Parts: sequence; structure tokens; C-alpha cells
Amino acid sequence: MKSYRSMTDSERRAELEAQQKRYAKEKAVGYKLDMSRGKPDATQLNLSMDMLQQNPYDLIYTRKGTDVRNYGELAGVDEAKELFGKVLGLEMENIIMGGQSSLALMYDTVIKAIVLGVCGGEKPWGQQGQIKFLCPTPGYDRHFRICEEFGIEMISIPMLSTGPDMELLRQYAESDPQVKGVWCVPKYSNPTGCTFSPETVEAFAALKPAADDFRIFWDNAYFVHGFRDTDDELVNIFEACKRHGSEDMVYEFMSTSKVTFSGAGVAVLAASRRNIEFLTRQMSVQTLGYDKINQLRHVRYFKDIDGLRNHMKKQADYLLPKFECALAALHTGLDDADIGRWTEPNGGYFISYEGLPGTARRCVQLCAEAGVKFTDAGACFPYGIDPEDKQIRIAPSYPSTQELYMSMNVFCICQKIAALEVLLREPTLD
Amino acid sequence: MKSYRSMTDSERRAELEAQQKRYAKEKAVGYKLDMSRGKPDATQLNLSMDMLQQNPYDLIYTRKGTDVRNYGELAGVDEAKELFGKVLGLEMENIIMGGQSSLALMYDTVIKAIVLGVCGGEKPWGQQGQIKFLCPTPGYDRHFRICEEFGIEMISIPMLSTGPDMELLRQYAESDPQVKGVWCVPKYSNPTGCTFSPETVEAFAALKPAADDFRIFWDNAYFVHGFRDTDDELVNIFEACKRHGSEDMVYEFMSTSKVTFSGAGVAVLAASRRNIEFLTRQMSVQTLGYDKINQLRHVRYFKDIDGLRNHMKKQADYLLPKFECALAALHTGLDDADIGRWTEPNGGYFISYEGLPGTARRCVQLCAEAGVKFTDAGACFPYGIDPEDKQIRIAPSYPSTQELYMSMNVFCICQKIAALEVLLREPTLD
Repeated sequence: MKSYRSMTDSERRAELEAQQKRYAKEKAVGYKLDMSRGKPDATQLNLSMDMLQQNPYDLIYTRKGTDVRNYGELAGVDEAKELFGKVLGLEMENIIMGGQSSLALMYDTVIKAIVLGVCGGEKPWGQQGQIKFLCPTPGYDRHFRICEEFGIEMISIPMLSTGPDMELLRQYAESDPQVKGVWCVPKYSNPTGCTFSPETVEAFAALKPAADDFRIFWDNAYFVHGFRDTDDELVNIFEACKRHGSEDMVYEFMSTSKVTFSGAGVAVLAASRRNIEFLTRQMSVQTLGYDKINQLRHVRYFKDIDGLRNHMKKQADYLLPKFECALAALHTGLDDADIGRWTEPNGGYFISYEGLPGTARRCVQLCAEAGVKFTDAGACFPYGIDPEDKQIRIAPSYPSTQELYMSMNVFCICQKIAALEVLLREPTLD
Repeated sequence: MKSYRSMTDSERRAELEAQQKRYAKEKAVGYKLDMSRGKPDATQLNLSMDMLQQNPYDLIYTRKGTDVRNYGELAGVDEAKELFGKVLGLEMENIIMGGQSSLALMYDTVIKAIVLGVCGGEKPWGQQGQIKFLCPTPGYDRHFRICEEFGIEMISIPMLSTGPDMELLRQYAESDPQVKGVWCVPKYSNPTGCTFSPETVEAFAALKPAADDFRIFWDNAYFVHGFRDTDDELVNIFEACKRHGSEDMVYEFMSTSKVTFSGAGVAVLAASRRNIEFLTRQMSVQTLGYDKINQLRHVRYFKDIDGLRNHMKKQADYLLPKFECALAALHTGLDDADIGRWTEPNGGYFISYEGLPGTARRCVQLCAEAGVKFTDAGACFPYGIDPEDKQIRIAPSYPSTQELYMSMNVFCICQKIAALEVLLREPTLD
């Protein structure tokens, strides 16, 4: 079959008619499928039930004898800080254990920076006029919503296969003192699935921001979420920062939302000792600590870093077929037409699809009308606006493989319709 | 024996010497006791272990079939909202389930009001110059620390046996638009143990604050924490507000920190539907929800409001002897000398002691030097300053009955020394 670009207009019209017929048939099925969020399904959640089966009397005392059922241990229990520190290549003194949402930790860190300022900063962010964040795009929609909520101006930085365009990012960060932060998902990035290259991490560590209260929000959500034999390697940014004396510039976040339970995991904030001290002081006004039984429950279940990795192997065995299924459907459905490209990640929760400019919103709308929900087109961009209207985030984890295959089939048909409509509006070259 | 006031100076000097001898003996024991915080002890925490013994497979699905292990149900699971709503005399639509700290919910509500504003407010609190909070004193130190952290000016309102001095409180709230809030612990108040009278609650509901973005922070921490046969009755403030059309003025908070586990409970925010809608919208930017397994764990364990009350009966049986022990020690140690008075609450976690002016800091210091730690003198007042230096908070829950008796004995000796020192500095009338 010919690619859509190489078709004449009459061939395109015939093809559009054929796809519209297929679409009508799919629509008539009355699907009710959700491909919009990167969330685990029930079977995947079952993989962690043993964690909840532990004898609760084994979950009372930390190794130093602290009763985790009581107040105390503001920054979390030692063994949790130690385990997650190891996972991130850090000491337990670099760790604060949070509640069950790393997003909440990030929000909290931003709002405190606005009202109270960051360690070493002269004034709170909120007293410095219009502040800005750098936003590698496509990126994680909920990061951008935090900025929008607080009126923080967002500057898009294109994502390359190696991570953000660091040359551009550096120019903004180093020239404008109103630029106070940057959002990153450095490993199996949401949504492109890329892992920042060693050069990219090095460039982050080497930043000399114009603002002395600039922070890198290093959202390492998929730190151990590879699902193929080859796991991407992410350089430890704190190691790189050490060489540049820039450790205070980084806040790293992670959680077990996609390790154990999205609704009942534990979250982690990692930072330099100076930052941890500063943040712990702030935290002492806010709370007497997060759920420590749940922290101990996690640590006693994983035992050590190998236990955590073995647990993630089970998750990988479960997720990989879903990704393969979605990718196969894309190949089968779209290779001939040649109207888009997509990422084939080694881990994480997303496939990023890029179609022809001007097709994304139309495609998502068509899918929705056929009962298949995708993440809103534009969601991965600041203010929800994809300037080229071409990117769509695909989240294969939640539907069953069967639902996934049906959804992706609908997706391919809708892509084709949207692409043909765009191509038919353009003057043909031949 | 004579009261200290009726003694001559020489009698006082002899008595001081006697007490100093007793003090030296106590000090030599080398105590290491902590009476500073209202926290449960291990035996008390054991009362809730059955909650953790539930089969985890019974804690997966809500009654409407939601998988609590996954994302979703931002404001909490229905059955939790329903149960805690009932406890507070409200509908589930008036409830947001939080994490395990009501303090964190309060902090969060204040910081969001500063940055984003409250429902119906014209501007965020942070954009209105110097704002103020009314602080019934003696009160809860951590409330005051939140104000201090954010530079909110604190205005002390004396606590009476019926609650805050409502006439004074009303004058401030209704005359000054910079007054944005008031802290309350309306039942078994921290530290006085008083419960606000129906008239006091009515007066709160009838407030017509000068600021249209004024909020009552109704920290109902001890909502079900009576430990005697007669439980104090607190009028439902929302019922009272309904009559005045002032429901939007109240944020109510509670938690199970002193019901199940201080380190792993659940917290609750209750408010008018309008406020809940507004706050849930803000919350949707911040997180995908708090730990829902723990919510379900709590509800399935209590089953209903009677289950919760029966559980608290066990706590009461455990706490009452500790309070009786502390009160007996105060009577035995101080009745004759007649140098102070104290509250004898029907519930909660504290006894509030008032000695002669100028004795509190000295007494706490003497106790500390003898190895018995009390809450810092002044802690129950804004900025940590008790203008009369006479109030001390006694928290009988954590030490064993034996430790408690020993601690209170030391306390009485130190009170006597401090009182005699003050009386000896005054000119004798006779």
C-alpha cells in the first residue's frame, strides 16, 4: 500500500471513505475504554499483596527500637531512608520520606518555596515578581498544572532523544534570574520514554543559573521501571553535581506508586544535606511525620535493593506484553500510511506518538466519540497547548491486552482519518 | 500545714530549705522522664493492632467497587467520608479525607489560603499585607507555630471555662479586616481540657467578621476522647452556622492519631459543600489522593460509629487511671501550699496547671534539671511567651503510671520551690 503522502487526492478521498467506514463499524461496538492515564491494573496491583500480608507485630519497631505507630521520626524511619537512599545512590541523610504521593511532595516544595523561600535564597519566590519554570516538552501534565496553579510562567524546551535541548535550557537558566526551576522526568520520561544521556545529566549539573534560588525538580518516577532486558542507565545527578559543587540545586523525587500501590505507596524526597536540613526544619512546623507503618511495611517487604529489583521484574513481565501489543498495533496499523512516528521505550508507562501537525486533537476527539479515551491532546505541553497539535500520549498499562489491542486499532483508524483530512486540505504537489 | 501565702518569711525560708532537700534527693535518682507531649504509649497503641490484622484482600474494594490500591477517589473513599461525616454530624459531601496528619491538613489549608486564597475571597491572604489570627490562650503550640512560620500576627484571646472570651474575640474579628482566622480546639481543649459551651459555639456561628475571607479553624482533635462516664457535649458548629448562613466560615479538622495510631492514622477536613468543592479543585492539582487502603482499613475495622465509640471506650479505660494518678499527685502535693490551680478534664490529653505568676519557667527548668521533661513554659502562648509566666501543660498519657507519679512528685516539689522563691522576693504584708 502507498503512503498517504504519495497518494493523489482522489486516492486519499477513497482511502478516507474506507477508513470512515471502518470507524463507523468500531463506533457501533460501543466501547468504553480508558487509555488516558498511566495507572496499573488490578492484576498488576495484586503483585504487591504479599506486602500487606506481613504480620503487623513485625511492623512495630524499627531496628533502633522506635515504635513507628507513635509520633516521631519526622523525616521517616532510618531503614526506609537507607533503602531508598541506596536506590538513588545516596546516603540516608539525603532522604526525607513523604506520604504516598511524590506529586504532593513536589507541590509542597513549590508552594513552600513561594511562601518561605529555598535554602540560600534571599527572598521567597513569591516576592520576586513573575517567576518562570523551564518545561521540557512533551512532559508530564501534572508538573505543568502546578505551575499554572501558581501563576508560574512556563517556557517550553524541546525534548530530544537524549533529554531536553540543554543548549537552549542553559541559555534560559543562565540569563534570566526569574527562571527558578525546571521540571524533569529523567528516566523513561513521561511521555517520550527517553532516559537523559550522561551528557545531559552532566549539563544539568554544570548549570550556573542566573537565580541563586534555582532548583531542578528531578522527578525520578520511573527509577526502576525498565521492562526489557536492557535497562536504561541514568547517571546519578548528585554525583555529577558534586564535581560542580552544585548539589544544592537539585530536588529529586520518587515514589512506589508504580512499584507497590498507586493508592497507598510511599514517596521520597532526596536532596543535599543542606537542603534536607532546611526542608526538615520547615516540615517540623507542618506535621509530626508521614505514615511510618507504611514505610516499614515497604522496607520489610523489599528487604533490600535486590528485593526491590526482583519485585520490579514481576512488574516488568507484566507490563512488557502490553507495550509490545500497543507497539505491534501501531506498526500494523500505521506503517504503510507513514503518517506518524512513536517512541519504543525500554521502561516507564508511556508511548509518545507524533502524527502530522494538526491531527492530534481531531484524533483524540474521534477516539473519544468511539468510546476510547486518550489523554487530552496538548496535555503534555504547558497550558495544555501543543503548538503543532501533533503529539498524543499513549498509556498501555491499565487496559487488558485485549482492550488495548482494540483501543489501538481505533486509534490507528482515527489517526488515518485525521491525517487524510489534513492532507486533503493541503494543495497536492503533483 | 499552712498555705505558703499565710506563712511568714522565716517559715517560707524553712519550707524552701525542706523542699530543696527533697529536690536534691529526687535529682540524685537520675530520672529520664518525658511529660512533654500528648502522645499515647505502646500499650495504648496495642489497642488498635486488630485493625492491622484484617485480611488485606478484604481491603481492596470499596462498596461501589473502586480498587483502593489504585489512583482515584481524590477526596477519599465514600465509606470513610460517610463514617467520619456521621461522627461530626455531617454528610459525606462535607468531607475530604486527608493523609495521617490533621496538622498537615491545617498547614496545607493555611498555605493555600496565603497563595491561592479561600472560596469567595477576593485576593489570596498573602496579597493583603499583614494578616492576623486570633489565638485563644493557652492553646495548642503547633497552631501558633504555623502562624509564626508564615508571619501571621497572633492576637491572644483568653480562654475561659466556657471557651474563648467571645466578646473580645468578636470585637477583633468584626472590626479588623486583617483578621483572617481563629484557632480552636473546641472539645477537651489543648491544654485546658474545657469544651466550648453551646453559647460559645453559637457566638462563633453568629460572627460577622470584617474580612469576607475569614475562617474558623475548628480543630476537633478530641471529638470522641472523653474518658469519664460523663462525656462533654459539643454543639455541632455547622448546625449553628446553618441558622446564621455562615457555614462557609468554618473548616473543621480531626484525625485518628489518638484513636488508632499517631504515626499511621487518617485525617479529615470537614466544610461546607461550597468550600469542599473549592478545596477539592485545589487538591486536584496537588495529588491524586491520600492513602486509601488505610482509609478502608480504618472504616472496616470500626464498622460504624458505635464501633468507633466502643474502641474509644478501651482508650478511655486506659487513659483515665493516668489522669487520676496525675490529679491525685497534684492534690496530695499542692493542696496545702495553695499555690496553684489546675483543670480536671473529662477527656483529651492534657491538664493545664496555673501556678503563681513568675514561676512557670523556673519550675519547668527545675524539673528538667531533675530529669523530668515538661512542655516548655510559654509553649501554649503565641510566640512562646506566657505574659504571666504561670501556665504549664501536663501530658499524662505517655509515661507509665509509676513514672507519672514520680514525675508529678518532682513537679510538685519544683512548683513549691519556684513559688517560695517568688514569695520570698515579695515584701511580706505582715
